[in-house]
Amino acid sequence: MKIGILTSGGDCPGLNAVIRGAVLKGIKIYGHEFVGFRDGWRGVVDGDTIELPRHMVRGISKQGGTILGTSRTNPYDGPNGGPEKIKATLARLGVDAVIAIGGEGTLAGARELSEAGLPIVGVPKTIDNDLDATDYTFGFDTAVQIATEAIDRLRTTGESHHRCMIAEVMGRNVGWIALHAGMASGAHAILIPEQQVSMDQVVEWVLEAHGRGRAPLVVVAEGWVPAGEHIAHSVRGTDVFGRPRLGGIGERIAPQIEHLTGLETRAATLGHIQRGGVPSAFDRVLATRLGMASVDAATKGLWGTMVSLRSTEIVNVGLEEAVGNLKKVPQERYDEAAMLFG
Amino acid sequence: MKIGILTSGGDCPGLNAVIRGAVLKGIKIYGHEFVGFRDGWRGVVDGDTIELPRHMVRGISKQGGTILGTSRTNPYDGPNGGPEKIKATLARLGVDAVIAIGGEGTLAGARELSEAGLPIVGVPKTIDNDLDATDYTFGFDTAVQIATEAIDRLRTTGESHHRCMIAEVMGRNVGWIALHAGMASGAHAILIPEQQVSMDQVVEWVLEAHGRGRAPLVVVAEGWVPAGEHIAHSVRGTDVFGRPRLGGIGERIAPQIEHLTGLETRAATLGHIQRGGVPSAFDRVLATRLGMASVDAATKGLWGTMVSLRSTEIVNVGLEEAVGNLKKVPQERYDEAAMLFG
Amino acid sequence: MKIGILTSGGDCPGLNAVIRGAVLKGIKIYGHEFVGFRDGWRGVVDGDTIELPRHMVRGISKQGGTILGTSRTNPYDGPNGGPEKIKATLARLGVDAVIAIGGEGTLAGARELSEAGLPIVGVPKTIDNDLDATDYTFGFDTAVQIATEAIDRLRTTGESHHRCMIAEVMGRNVGWIALHAGMASGAHAILIPEQQVSMDQVVEWVLEAHGRGRAPLVVVAEGWVPAGEHIAHSVRGTDVFGRPRLGGIGERIAPQIEHLTGLETRAATLGHIQRGGVPSAFDRVLATRLGMASVDAATKGLWGTMVSLRSTEIVNVGLEEAVGNLKKVPQERYDEAAMLFG
Amino acid sequence: MKIGILTSGGDCPGLNAVIRGAVLKGIKIYGHEFVGFRDGWRGVVDGDTIELPRHMVRGISKQGGTILGTSRTNPYDGPNGGPEKIKATLARLGVDAVIAIGGEGTLAGARELSEAGLPIVGVPKTIDNDLDATDYTFGFDTAVQIATEAIDRLRTTGESHHRCMIAEVMGRNVGWIALHAGMASGAHAILIPEQQVSMDQVVEWVLEAHGRGRAPLVVVAEGWVPAGEHIAHSVRGTDVFGRPRLGGIGERIAPQIEHLTGLETRAATLGHIQRGGVPSAFDRVLATRLGMASVDAATKGLWGTMVSLRSTEIVNVGLEEAVGNLKKVPQERYDEAAMLFG
Repeated sequence: MKIGILTSGGDCPGLNAVIRGAVLKGIKIYGHEFVGFRDGWRGVVDGDTIELPRHMVRGISKQGGTILGTSRTNPYDGPNGGPEKIKATLARLGVDAVIAIGGEGTLAGARELSEAGLPIVGVPKTIDNDLDATDYTFGFDTAVQIATEAIDRLRTTGESHHRCMIAEVMGRNVGWIALHAGMASGAHAILIPEQQVSMDQVVEWVLEAHGRGRAPLVVVAEGWVPAGEHIAHSVRGTDVFGRPRLGGIGERIAPQIEHLTGLETRAATLGHIQRGGVPSAFDRVLATRLGMASVDAATKGLWGTMVSLRSTEIVNVGLEEAVGNLKKVPQERYDEAAMLFG
Repeated sequence: MKIGILTSGGDCPGLNAVIRGAVLKGIKIYGHEFVGFRDGWRGVVDGDTIELPRHMVRGISKQGGTILGTSRTNPYDGPNGGPEKIKATLARLGVDAVIAIGGEGTLAGARELSEAGLPIVGVPKTIDNDLDATDYTFGFDTAVQIATEAIDRLRTTGESHHRCMIAEVMGRNVGWIALHAGMASGAHAILIPEQQVSMDQVVEWVLEAHGRGRAPLVVVAEGWVPAGEHIAHSVRGTDVFGRPRLGGIGERIAPQIEHLTGLETRAATLGHIQRGGVPSAFDRVLATRLGMASVDAATKGLWGTMVSLRSTEIVNVGLEEAVGNLKKVPQERYDEAAMLFG
Repeated sequence: MKIGILTSGGDCPGLNAVIRGAVLKGIKIYGHEFVGFRDGWRGVVDGDTIELPRHMVRGISKQGGTILGTSRTNPYDGPNGGPEKIKATLARLGVDAVIAIGGEGTLAGARELSEAGLPIVGVPKTIDNDLDATDYTFGFDTAVQIATEAIDRLRTTGESHHRCMIAEVMGRNVGWIALHAGMASGAHAILIPEQQVSMDQVVEWVLEAHGRGRAPLVVVAEGWVPAGEHIAHSVRGTDVFGRPRLGGIGERIAPQIEHLTGLETRAATLGHIQRGGVPSAFDRVLATRLGMASVDAATKGLWGTMVSLRSTEIVNVGLEEAVGNLKKVPQERYDEAAMLFG
Repeated sequence: MKIGILTSGGDCPGLNAVIRGAVLKGIKIYGHEFVGFRDGWRGVVDGDTIELPRHMVRGISKQGGTILGTSRTNPYDGPNGGPEKIKATLARLGVDAVIAIGGEGTLAGARELSEAGLPIVGVPKTIDNDLDATDYTFGFDTAVQIATEAIDRLRTTGESHHRCMIAEVMGRNVGWIALHAGMASGAHAILIPEQQVSMDQVVEWVLEAHGRGRAPLVVVAEGWVPAGEHIAHSVRGTDVFGRPRLGGIGERIAPQIEHLTGLETRAATLGHIQRGGVPSAFDRVLATRLGMASVDAATKGLWGTMVSLRSTEIVNVGLEEAVGNLKKVPQERYDEAAMLFG
């Protein structure tokens, strides 16, 4: 059996460990052959592959990024996209199965293609942990760890200068990274897209912490908007044509908090450092196990399914379970965290 | 309600986060009062406490160790031990409930005492992850991460010198740390107490890796014994009376592997660094949530229960579920890992 | 002898290690007594102090920030500022000597005050490493290490997405952090305030790296300006009054580079995380030694001097040597680094 | 010009950065060609080389170990050793110059060979920092940082259990790592080979720290011996022939300290993790600069010299300055540190 692997969408610590797990098990246990599609679906559409013999995956599980490259290309894009053209391309390449590692968009595409008869299994990938049908996704633990270490550093500056510090972390649609990094670093307020919170409430938490002699710490997900306000991100630079670029919510609310509380306030946007680099041990183990399970699924012909973590087990679930439902932070998890605010 | 907290047994990253979670929620949500028993059950038996107002737990969730101290004292020890004497001591101190943070022994003691009518709830603590009735215990993730980082470092030495490297990690009775750190670091062999593996098999894996041009890496749990051999740890130094002290399995098998494979072989025992220091973000979140849930359980009078992680939820389980059954690495988890050996 | 210590200006990893070194040696070797001035010169001007017995400095050398607090107050500010008023305040407090830990501004103030007869010794503190008369200042090594680790993470994202990544690091007037973090991370271009470099040159380096199949990495100090351009920082958000806030150079040049090279380009501003948190071992040792030497200088009455690192030795130099001359990156050091660009 | 590079002796973080610095500058600035000798002098003696085009050194400056491999082979060993045979081998390979990266032994060999007319320049390499004629050697900073982080972790265990902790670090002949890691971690005693210290003195320091409520921390270099005692390392395991293997000083003195102080005492030997893995930013910069300077020296034909760090400059010194004199910790540096003991 010849299996093609692709990584699609934003990079994520653990991608290489998935690739390694799939290739090693596929070669050692099943005698499969592997190729990698370059740059996600683009490599599928263009038939652009690299060989993946065993030595190519040597030592890569601790490397960030993806050795295959990635892109945001859609499998339906262009003259060679769509199920029939891809079917022909796979036939030409002799590829019997595709392991698609990607997020919501990739898995939705994989579902459509597998319904159209293509032999595809999915591996869920989202640094934001926003995919349903799996307890955690690889990369999330690393992102939380990096954010937490950075916030630990910010705190000492806040305390020395008696400032309010705002840390903006990733999370456009869901607040999992903010929730975990905020709890881990003892934040006095955590602001996430799922929760309507007014600036008045934020100010109350900030002043409460300040009143106890603490330097207030606010952790905010990039997708949060103050209750009652329109989405109106601040301007962050201008692009090459002089048009304003939208900036972060942390920088936008810092002057408001400073104004409303009278406390010197600084925002730090953690940005891309959250998604790169060496994966945590947790993510390496999870990613390796998912990669190994994906090759089992491909061998069994479980097309249209993806591998998933349930408690401590790796299971198989239909892609329809995973796509369409964003896994939001439930109310009770936010309420639990909010008990320690202020 | 006045609640006494104790930490017992070996230290573990996350103990302080449990204490902080319990105290903050207890004070803010329920209006409870807290004291800490010094040095585990010794503080209970001796009635030796410190006050735990809110400011005492400030910023401690990222500190390793335990601010309460710990010991291996048994609650039945000495003239002031046992349920009746402890009941009298708690009454004298005005303590209405005890939150006991500890491992198998502590929880077994807590169970007995709660059956004798004492108001105790447990929080499971084991760096080895060997407690049943919970998916993970705090401290385990940190230990795996530290071990993995150390093993990443050992590899570069192995590869530069073309040596076989043996990393001995914690795990007297179970091999969870070895399994996870070994998978995360891409070990060519993982040896755990639960699995009978012969030296011949180990040598085969080592030579297979060497044959592919790799510097073989063996991760061994301290409690592993080669199949067919008696427990015969090597001598590691002598004590003050000149008597030999038992050394580690890594050092013991290194010369055997060297002899049998002809490869220069070195062992490194990671030791105490695995259990100290700053907890990982994962462990801080888990420990904080467990601490908060333990105070809920105490408030509800759920004596004889402990808090536990199931998938992503914190639940309450009877202590009888947790004690008595060592949570071993299941055969299928070892088989999964072993597919990548050699 | 009663010695007062103050920390002034931006926080910096190692401040607490200086304080601990001074207090421990002062108490153990000389039998001195110590107080800390709160929040830098403000505490001096206001006579606002805290006692510094030995136990106050226990375990603080690995803590970021400063236990004394800091501010940007000038010793000449306000009705109680200036040499005569401060002299009176010190007399009232019984303080015989002041150890002032701070940057250019603080040391210039300390020089003036000591020339006016006040008993002051300085300890140089600048995370930017821009003080003359010392090889390195504490905090710099930690900042470089944090920046390097963050840039290592950024690279994997750049390589997976075939992007040009721009990392903006601290350095308003000098480029030491950019130079060292850039060399350590193998940057394809390093841009520093000391060096006139045109955007054409930057584009050439970026395209050269891209031409060899690399994801170009540019490390830029916040104070760099493209040759031939006015200082025209981009807009980063608006303040509470709706006025634009000046943004960073990294964000400003990213769209230009994208436009001129055709490569997707992303900027990350490392910001405050570079100055907080646990100091590196190098900085802890350096800071401890400087703290100890500062108390020697105070004991000997070497007013108007500061302690300084020369090669591996701690020496005393006149404050006049340190202030007035910004220590810039010399041409030959930049040329050395530039040989590896592109 | 065709230059051959070798790395010899124990591995050390930064070796790859030296290789990269030399190759990049050599190719880009001088147009040289490079080969690597495999496994140190063995590759020279055997004429065993690999090509080193530019892409071979891509991204390696942050990798631990050495891509060339290393060994303890002596250039005078075997039938093909010695200056004449090597001269012939170099001629056959077309190698015009050798850059030898190694410690005392390697540099002594390089000196002899260059006196015999061979075109060799040296790059000093010792993780122990024991080479004279250079302020620091690369690898040392990383080793100190790793040791310090490990000791930070050990402390929390010590404090929770009220134990005396002993950390044994590298340093067979000199105590630089112990001195720096001990100062950085606030050790209550630092024991180094250069200093005669009695067990009575150690016990006094331990009890003094304990008396102030601290968990005593002792950092000992592996080569230290208690004053008045013979070198009598403890037994650590047995080798394959049943003969005792010599164990570490930490494990040996732990029971003595426990016996003499009545405090529970544990030793941890940090071992090989100190010399592997990702180099610190400091070491990457230093190593890159040394590599670049070594190719300058080779280009200029400065045979018999080595590159060296003086303050912040890279200079050239004769190999005779570097070899023969072990750079010991001077008395005043130990006295400085010892002021904070107890």
